[in-house]
Amino acid sequence: MSGIGMEKALEIADRVEAFVREVIVPYERDPRIEVHGHGPSEELIMEMRDKARAAGVMTPHILPDGNHLSQRETAVVLIRSGLSPLGPLACNTMAPDEGNMYLLGKVGSPEQKQRFLKQLVSGEARSAFFMTEPASDGGAGSDPSMMQTTCHPDGNHWVINGRKAFITGAQGARVGIVMAKSTEGACMFLVDLPNPAIRIERVLDTIDSSMPGGHAVVAIDNLRVPADQMLGASGEGFQYAQVRLSPARLSHCMRWLGGAIRSQEIATAYACKRHAFGKPLVDHEGVGFMLAENLIDIRQAELMIDWCAGVLDTGSLGTAESSMAKVAVSEALMRIADKCVQVMGGTGVSGDTIVEQIFREVRAFRIYDGPTEVHKWSMAKKIKRDFAKANP
Amino acid sequence: MSGIGMEKALEIADRVEAFVREVIVPYERDPRIEVHGHGPSEELIMEMRDKARAAGVMTPHILPDGNHLSQRETAVVLIRSGLSPLGPLACNTMAPDEGNMYLLGKVGSPEQKQRFLKQLVSGEARSAFFMTEPASDGGAGSDPSMMQTTCHPDGNHWVINGRKAFITGAQGARVGIVMAKSTEGACMFLVDLPNPAIRIERVLDTIDSSMPGGHAVVAIDNLRVPADQMLGASGEGFQYAQVRLSPARLSHCMRWLGGAIRSQEIATAYACKRHAFGKPLVDHEGVGFMLAENLIDIRQAELMIDWCAGVLDTGSLGTAESSMAKVAVSEALMRIADKCVQVMGGTGVSGDTIVEQIFREVRAFRIYDGPTEVHKWSMAKKIKRDFAKANP
Amino acid sequence: MSGIGMEKALEIADRVEAFVREVIVPYERDPRIEVHGHGPSEELIMEMRDKARAAGVMTPHILPDGNHLSQRETAVVLIRSGLSPLGPLACNTMAPDEGNMYLLGKVGSPEQKQRFLKQLVSGEARSAFFMTEPASDGGAGSDPSMMQTTCHPDGNHWVINGRKAFITGAQGARVGIVMAKSTEGACMFLVDLPNPAIRIERVLDTIDSSMPGGHAVVAIDNLRVPADQMLGASGEGFQYAQVRLSPARLSHCMRWLGGAIRSQEIATAYACKRHAFGKPLVDHEGVGFMLAENLIDIRQAELMIDWCAGVLDTGSLGTAESSMAKVAVSEALMRIADKCVQVMGGTGVSGDTIVEQIFREVRAFRIYDGPTEVHKWSMAKKIKRDFAKANP
Amino acid sequence: MSGIGMEKALEIADRVEAFVREVIVPYERDPRIEVHGHGPSEELIMEMRDKARAAGVMTPHILPDGNHLSQRETAVVLIRSGLSPLGPLACNTMAPDEGNMYLLGKVGSPEQKQRFLKQLVSGEARSAFFMTEPASDGGAGSDPSMMQTTCHPDGNHWVINGRKAFITGAQGARVGIVMAKSTEGACMFLVDLPNPAIRIERVLDTIDSSMPGGHAVVAIDNLRVPADQMLGASGEGFQYAQVRLSPARLSHCMRWLGGAIRSQEIATAYACKRHAFGKPLVDHEGVGFMLAENLIDIRQAELMIDWCAGVLDTGSLGTAESSMAKVAVSEALMRIADKCVQVMGGTGVSGDTIVEQIFREVRAFRIYDGPTEVHKWSMAKKIKRDFAKANP
Repeated sequence: MSGIGMEKALEIADRVEAFVREVIVPYERDPRIEVHGHGPSEELIMEMRDKARAAGVMTPHILPDGNHLSQRETAVVLIRSGLSPLGPLACNTMAPDEGNMYLLGKVGSPEQKQRFLKQLVSGEARSAFFMTEPASDGGAGSDPSMMQTTCHPDGNHWVINGRKAFITGAQGARVGIVMAKSTEGACMFLVDLPNPAIRIERVLDTIDSSMPGGHAVVAIDNLRVPADQMLGASGEGFQYAQVRLSPARLSHCMRWLGGAIRSQEIATAYACKRHAFGKPLVDHEGVGFMLAENLIDIRQAELMIDWCAGVLDTGSLGTAESSMAKVAVSEALMRIADKCVQVMGGTGVSGDTIVEQIFREVRAFRIYDGPTEVHKWSMAKKIKRDFAKANP
Repeated sequence: MSGIGMEKALEIADRVEAFVREVIVPYERDPRIEVHGHGPSEELIMEMRDKARAAGVMTPHILPDGNHLSQRETAVVLIRSGLSPLGPLACNTMAPDEGNMYLLGKVGSPEQKQRFLKQLVSGEARSAFFMTEPASDGGAGSDPSMMQTTCHPDGNHWVINGRKAFITGAQGARVGIVMAKSTEGACMFLVDLPNPAIRIERVLDTIDSSMPGGHAVVAIDNLRVPADQMLGASGEGFQYAQVRLSPARLSHCMRWLGGAIRSQEIATAYACKRHAFGKPLVDHEGVGFMLAENLIDIRQAELMIDWCAGVLDTGSLGTAESSMAKVAVSEALMRIADKCVQVMGGTGVSGDTIVEQIFREVRAFRIYDGPTEVHKWSMAKKIKRDFAKANP
Repeated sequence: MSGIGMEKALEIADRVEAFVREVIVPYERDPRIEVHGHGPSEELIMEMRDKARAAGVMTPHILPDGNHLSQRETAVVLIRSGLSPLGPLACNTMAPDEGNMYLLGKVGSPEQKQRFLKQLVSGEARSAFFMTEPASDGGAGSDPSMMQTTCHPDGNHWVINGRKAFITGAQGARVGIVMAKSTEGACMFLVDLPNPAIRIERVLDTIDSSMPGGHAVVAIDNLRVPADQMLGASGEGFQYAQVRLSPARLSHCMRWLGGAIRSQEIATAYACKRHAFGKPLVDHEGVGFMLAENLIDIRQAELMIDWCAGVLDTGSLGTAESSMAKVAVSEALMRIADKCVQVMGGTGVSGDTIVEQIFREVRAFRIYDGPTEVHKWSMAKKIKRDFAKANP
Repeated sequence: MSGIGMEKALEIADRVEAFVREVIVPYERDPRIEVHGHGPSEELIMEMRDKARAAGVMTPHILPDGNHLSQRETAVVLIRSGLSPLGPLACNTMAPDEGNMYLLGKVGSPEQKQRFLKQLVSGEARSAFFMTEPASDGGAGSDPSMMQTTCHPDGNHWVINGRKAFITGAQGARVGIVMAKSTEGACMFLVDLPNPAIRIERVLDTIDSSMPGGHAVVAIDNLRVPADQMLGASGEGFQYAQVRLSPARLSHCMRWLGGAIRSQEIATAYACKRHAFGKPLVDHEGVGFMLAENLIDIRQAELMIDWCAGVLDTGSLGTAESSMAKVAVSEALMRIADKCVQVMGGTGVSGDTIVEQIFREVRAFRIYDGPTEVHKWSMAKKIKRDFAKANP
């Protein structure tokens, strides 16, 4: 990927950071954020986006001509947008939209881009990606091969039936990408939302609080989609999912690294100001060491993201590399967030600072986009394959 | 402590377990529980307590004659009450009431017991313990020597002024034990609540959800308490706090171990039923090993609690032992809860099972009653003292 | 198991401890100990055993009438014998003899006991247990079902052929228990050593230093054993291995816990005496916390051993419990040993104290008698089985 | 630092790797390596160096004109040299020579370079750095401010007295850099070795096996050094130590990362070839996950080294960055080495592969060049300082 050059990307990142710190952080305790999984209200999102537009930081990782920054450039921008859990929502660098825009940019037809992508890039609309399915149905959770949602052609339409679970942002989305299995393999469809054939059964209560519309369980009942709303070709769905996979996964790492950096700032300030047992907390090695370990983890997370982004920028799918990055970064962020909470004692587990929320978000992140164990499993498979190849 | 014999204690424990599983578990998704720190409503608590009384499991660790079970016996009962986060509230084995009843039983005058303790043991009233102070005031958080709330005699009364923070259950409590410093040292006072001189400034939003009334920040403004409501003698407050300390700390371990056991049950069932990548989750070593590690951690937590309880039952204050138990158990429970969440993937971070809440509660527990680091600090001091004593 | 009562066991333990500290510790830097796996020389062992006999602590866990202490009583004695890595060798509480004596006591015929067991209990002879096989042969390492050594009857003898690996103490042993597969299943044989048909191919260089004779790779070539030297019945070998399994496994935990306790003593003294950056090391939380964590781990290891021993004392095979204890204790001892090394800095990685050796021994212990992962694997299988049983 | 360009550096690295794998690896089981700390014999070292010269890989990180590769370039070369613990000795990239050559190149006078540096760069001679002092004397271990060795001018000479400990390579070195305190502060002196005034009291038995000459305790008794053998200026010794510090520290990371990569190769091959419980070890997630975690740790170690090297290449002292890298890399390498041992079971703790030795070496590395805790301590100090600066 060509990109715009790291220097320009850093300029964008600086503007994003200033906007998030000055304009968005004050929204963090806004009552329009529902704590237990359902996220900020649409009204709040749109209010923040108006301010992002005014500040020139709306969708900052996509250029006016539709080109994306390179992944390494995207990293420096998205990390900064994540300094507040609300930042990515405000700046339109949030999941699942970021990944959906990326996918549409890569695979969508000109007409599809005009109709679906444009309103996403402008931040007027949000989108959802209907892939994962309910565990209780024996459907595709972390294992997409178990997909049970079906599609079959019917005249100039496709008819889709099934159930989907953990569909982030479905509630409130205006654009949907729906994945289903035809006789030829997996397919993807673009749909307008809301749609009477796509019924939100319920929105899950979850430990995290920043996802717009939360995570929904959805029933798809005889959804009819015109054939020209198929994204790409029939049977190629898993390949498109692969295209979306690594960048989307890595963008999670970027955003939440921003959150971890913010937590560390808050915990550091707390430890330097508050005294216990005769000296500032930071002078207690038990506290100072935790902050030191966090510095190392933050640095390593940055390096892993930059490394993986560089691999993607060569044009590689980077599936193995993004698995490694996802495991390393999500586990590191958990350690960081956990230590920040611990440094701050009672304040750390209270909503008085954003540290408590970031801890909860990062806990979820260790599962979202593939639990750590699934990635280790696929890495172990690859280790075996690589050994067999090298030792025939 | 004499107790009633382990066999009888186990009978009580069995009854408590049956009650919690059959009657209380169904309340877990009751909308009268507020998620972000404020806990179940008074109405819900009293409804559950009526059922506990009917089932003969109200305050099951205190005998009708006022005697307590021994600590080892208490353990088997309180662990079972903790199988639901609501269980201890229903059965009146919850903090801070359990510790407050213990303290009143040990130090209270007959009149004080009649007036304050009786309504607590019957479960009609709840209580709060006003010790910790706001970090922002430079007050006593984990370090009680920093206490800034003062009391001074004024005729036949004492007048108390100060601010308290993280006062669990203050909202809704009818009995308060207030700690303050006189010229002679720390004092404790029994007060009726609510009281216009004890103003709840705010109830914190916290990561946990099971504490009745949440954790409050409280301003005490010229609170006048009749001298006969002083608990014990003036200047002895820290010694009484010591009496309360270890049993209360250990009772946290007991209750939350119950929660961890429950989480493990749920995660085990999930792992045995749900399939991914061609076999039941439990057949994946990445999952099965986590459950195996949890079994070990659960066993060790039980053993540490039993050991520390045995020390307390000899009449020892058990300060060092309860520090060790608190660190070992709270950190073990965190590992257990975290792994249960991880085993269950997306379901683990959702409110669909109680596992998600138990994870949040246990996170807070690593800080409540002294963060891990404070206990390690005091253990290290003791290691040094013991070495100096043995090598004069 | 009846045993002699814990009070008497503690008296024995006190004598063992005094002997080990006063008489055996000075031998620790004896040049007759070869560092890289081969252990102390026979001469050194016999010299120490003479002193153990004189002190009345030879084979202290077996009574003159041949009865063993109960497992809980054995624990208090063996832990103390382990205060020096040489202690178990001196007192004859070492692996593999301890387990071999246990097995012979349970399964041996009176004649077999007279001929083979007696010289072991008196400490005159050492023994070896020929079960595990070389990885390179595809034989039985951690998975005994892969056993490739065979035995077949030939007149009044059995003829045994195969290769064995990691046979601790084979070099220098006078008694061997050899395991092989007949058409009826696994068999065990008692043999006099050395024996020309049992050729020690080599003794491994290993990270540990305390095993007498090290760990050997052995070729068994047409070994002829009279039929009355079969231990128990043909085909029952795995059942006898089960009888030996849990107590032997647990006795490893006991002995090495002693080593960990000793390491903690040495590291504590070092941390209390040595200064850095302006104060005693122990006053640095980074050091004091490690010692505090060790105290907890030591306590938990003691409790796990006592618990598992109690299960064995009920007559249970305790296979699952000893797996749990082995994992918990060996991993805890590794943490302890590692932290003791770290506390002592450069001195910690030098042979100036026994801490360095104990670290190496404990590293091996995480693999000996089943690596941690094999135990977790079998625990996970049991979790699944137990769930299926409870939820038919 | 300018360097030669990464492409050329990689060519050198490839040659070094080929040499180490083909020529040096076969020496790994040479009996001239003494296991318990004393390292390979001089004869063996010189034999390997002859081969390195013949292969054109002697001192590959220093150009014929005396310029060093940049740190980033050095990294790719030194990592490869470390694929065998003997590689750095053979190629002359070993500590303490690498750091001593670096220091002499930076601070030495032309005469000093001619007399002392030349023979080091050519690999004919080895050197030692006499800084750390015995704990038992209350001297400078990890805390150099406690230095007790003194120097005072006496005519045209300096006279040095004191004791030094953990002096790697002193035994057999021909060049020494001795640090001592004058009234003006710390000084450094170049001395020819052996020298009757520098008496090697003993060479420590240590857990590692690759350091030439092991680690010595040394008495310096009225050592007279001509004034022109002072390195740099009087009182500047700590500043020079700082110059040497970060590159030397980072070079340890580089070399031992090579060892970890080698361990991973061996463990991977073992896990792919050996079967247990019905399938190749690598197909057991308990094993495959360990290898996957190692891949992540290896990658992160590479990235941290490259990042820190880049900081040094800007001309910065990089003290904080090299502390971060040292902690992150040494702890990662320990995890890697430990898992490789564990994957290989009994073979892992035996000398049958180099994995066992690398485990021991890496254990020592967590202490050499500053234990992890000392680095965290200095990082915590810096966190406090940086906060104070930013919040005056």
